[in-house]
Amino acid sequence: MIQTKGIAALKAKEALVPYRFERRDPKEYDVVIDIKYCGICHSDIHMTRDEWGFGSPFPMVPGHEIAGVVRTVGGKVTKYKIGDRVGVGCMVDSCRECAHCKKGMEQYCIPGNTMTYGSMERDGSAITQGGYSDVIVVNEDYVLRIPDNLPLDKAAPLLCAGITTYSPLNHWKTGPGKKVAVMGLGGLGHMAVKIAKAMGAEVTVLSQSEKKEIDAKRLGADDFLNTKSPKVFQENTLRFDLIINTVSSADLNMANYFGLLKLDGTLVSVGAPEKPLTIHPFPLILMRRNFAGSVIGSIKETQEMLDFCGKHNITPEIELIEPNQVNDAYARVLKSDIRYRFVIDMGKI
Amino acid sequence: MIQTKGIAALKAKEALVPYRFERRDPKEYDVVIDIKYCGICHSDIHMTRDEWGFGSPFPMVPGHEIAGVVRTVGGKVTKYKIGDRVGVGCMVDSCRECAHCKKGMEQYCIPGNTMTYGSMERDGSAITQGGYSDVIVVNEDYVLRIPDNLPLDKAAPLLCAGITTYSPLNHWKTGPGKKVAVMGLGGLGHMAVKIAKAMGAEVTVLSQSEKKEIDAKRLGADDFLNTKSPKVFQENTLRFDLIINTVSSADLNMANYFGLLKLDGTLVSVGAPEKPLTIHPFPLILMRRNFAGSVIGSIKETQEMLDFCGKHNITPEIELIEPNQVNDAYARVLKSDIRYRFVIDMGKI
Repeated sequence: MIQTKGIAALKAKEALVPYRFERRDPKEYDVVIDIKYCGICHSDIHMTRDEWGFGSPFPMVPGHEIAGVVRTVGGKVTKYKIGDRVGVGCMVDSCRECAHCKKGMEQYCIPGNTMTYGSMERDGSAITQGGYSDVIVVNEDYVLRIPDNLPLDKAAPLLCAGITTYSPLNHWKTGPGKKVAVMGLGGLGHMAVKIAKAMGAEVTVLSQSEKKEIDAKRLGADDFLNTKSPKVFQENTLRFDLIINTVSSADLNMANYFGLLKLDGTLVSVGAPEKPLTIHPFPLILMRRNFAGSVIGSIKETQEMLDFCGKHNITPEIELIEPNQVNDAYARVLKSDIRYRFVIDMGKI
Repeated sequence: MIQTKGIAALKAKEALVPYRFERRDPKEYDVVIDIKYCGICHSDIHMTRDEWGFGSPFPMVPGHEIAGVVRTVGGKVTKYKIGDRVGVGCMVDSCRECAHCKKGMEQYCIPGNTMTYGSMERDGSAITQGGYSDVIVVNEDYVLRIPDNLPLDKAAPLLCAGITTYSPLNHWKTGPGKKVAVMGLGGLGHMAVKIAKAMGAEVTVLSQSEKKEIDAKRLGADDFLNTKSPKVFQENTLRFDLIINTVSSADLNMANYFGLLKLDGTLVSVGAPEKPLTIHPFPLILMRRNFAGSVIGSIKETQEMLDFCGKHNITPEIELIEPNQVNDAYARVLKSDIRYRFVIDMGKI
């Protein structure tokens, strides 16, 4: 077994503490990765607090925005070799047999994919533990290659924040001539702005926080709408082809946002609120609009996203912290006091 | 002016009473239609009770499922002649200049189309009055041709119930190999079953009313799911490409219905509830599902639907009533005590 140093929530809603545990020795197709950096995703907070009601297992080592270097590989691994710069995202396995897995859409695995942390391994041998740790063992098919020009600390959040926004932008055909709006300028939102812009769309940020306008423009947004003003909704009806909703609050007047969509436009939620939304179908009916959801992306699409970010030199804006700062960082995420992603320097554990 | 006999709500929520009024004399492009039959749509009840909060004008002559025969035409009318069998649906005009009108999608006219009743005419001359009357005057571009093989009484409901279900079935590409479910087996639902079946899909009816199973099968449904049983939702996850929601109640567990959709499937609401729906985006996110709305269809698509129904000999199941039975019919619609559409014999007014 591989001795592993990590940071865990021992129980739901408790502060994270140092935690020692063991990883499996590499099997034939496994890659052992020295974790260099791990991003902090809002999901980590939901999960360590069990706020989605999944009945998550504890102790829990969170973290699914992992960047590191290959330490060693199993005997039959062909895709990676020692020293390769690699990443791991939100899943480390899937059934590989269902209709969705066979179509290369493991993120929608019908029996459910194996999440990077908090899931039972498919062979029942252990509960998966995530990237707030110094080493991880992952089957090569669920390991991603990080382009040479992207620094590992900044690449880490691409594995969740990057693909979670790239996938719907890609699926709903973002490109030149398309008008895309991004609700919320946080970890996900700021990636959506950069990626949509690189895809060639006209990008607008929708935010209640007036002071984010300067940042939005600096990140590449063409326009900024302060959604505190009701006038903004009247003045921009039928403007956007696609709206990416990265806001996980349920306190949104969804009718206002739907009204911003063109005929046949789509608003895609990528953040899941704890409470349900209140939605009157009238604004959907009256302009045949769509309300959709999207979760991360497939392994193939994640590699495509990383290569796209490498080509366009896109990385998130990060604040690097040490492992003992995680609880403070969580508190700041909950206050939206981060521009735009915390990344833990796992070398300091 | 043309003296017209109708049935009107003089005030919101009042019983309908006989009502005499005047229609304009035909202008150059107008068609004067002797109304033979008019269907009763649930919207008529919502509108005469002003339940959607539109602040509708009164007196109101409802009715937008109109079938009749051309009495006379204006001097420049080329599309219709005296004696033609014609219909009028939910709109009698639109701006004709906006981007949607120019694309032939007048149902989504940006300034708003002119509804068959309860709208101001575009020249400000009058409030439109609907089909619970013996004659109507409509610009030829908003008049439809009824196929010879369809009896006028049965054709009337196609003008709203038919196109409201045909349009989303058509837009979301219903056809062979597709699995379509229809929520609710009422006026709209039973048309959706017949049309989806004729388009070649496998059709399933979802209803809380067990006793509708026999009818569902008789109307052409391949399967029937009794949604009172929670098991039904577990056993049919990921089954349908498309669900047409014709239920106008807001008391639906939408997560259950979304769960029935395949990856990338769409649930389309065509009936507008008075209250908003409670929707948690999780089931949308987890399988990239869509929740959409759709309203009637364009004039071109309505003609296409009528021709399709003519070709496949599709008509609604109707109960023919006399004009003085309208209030009783409304009461029965509210109790869902109608299989499946009331049609008023306007010749008896």
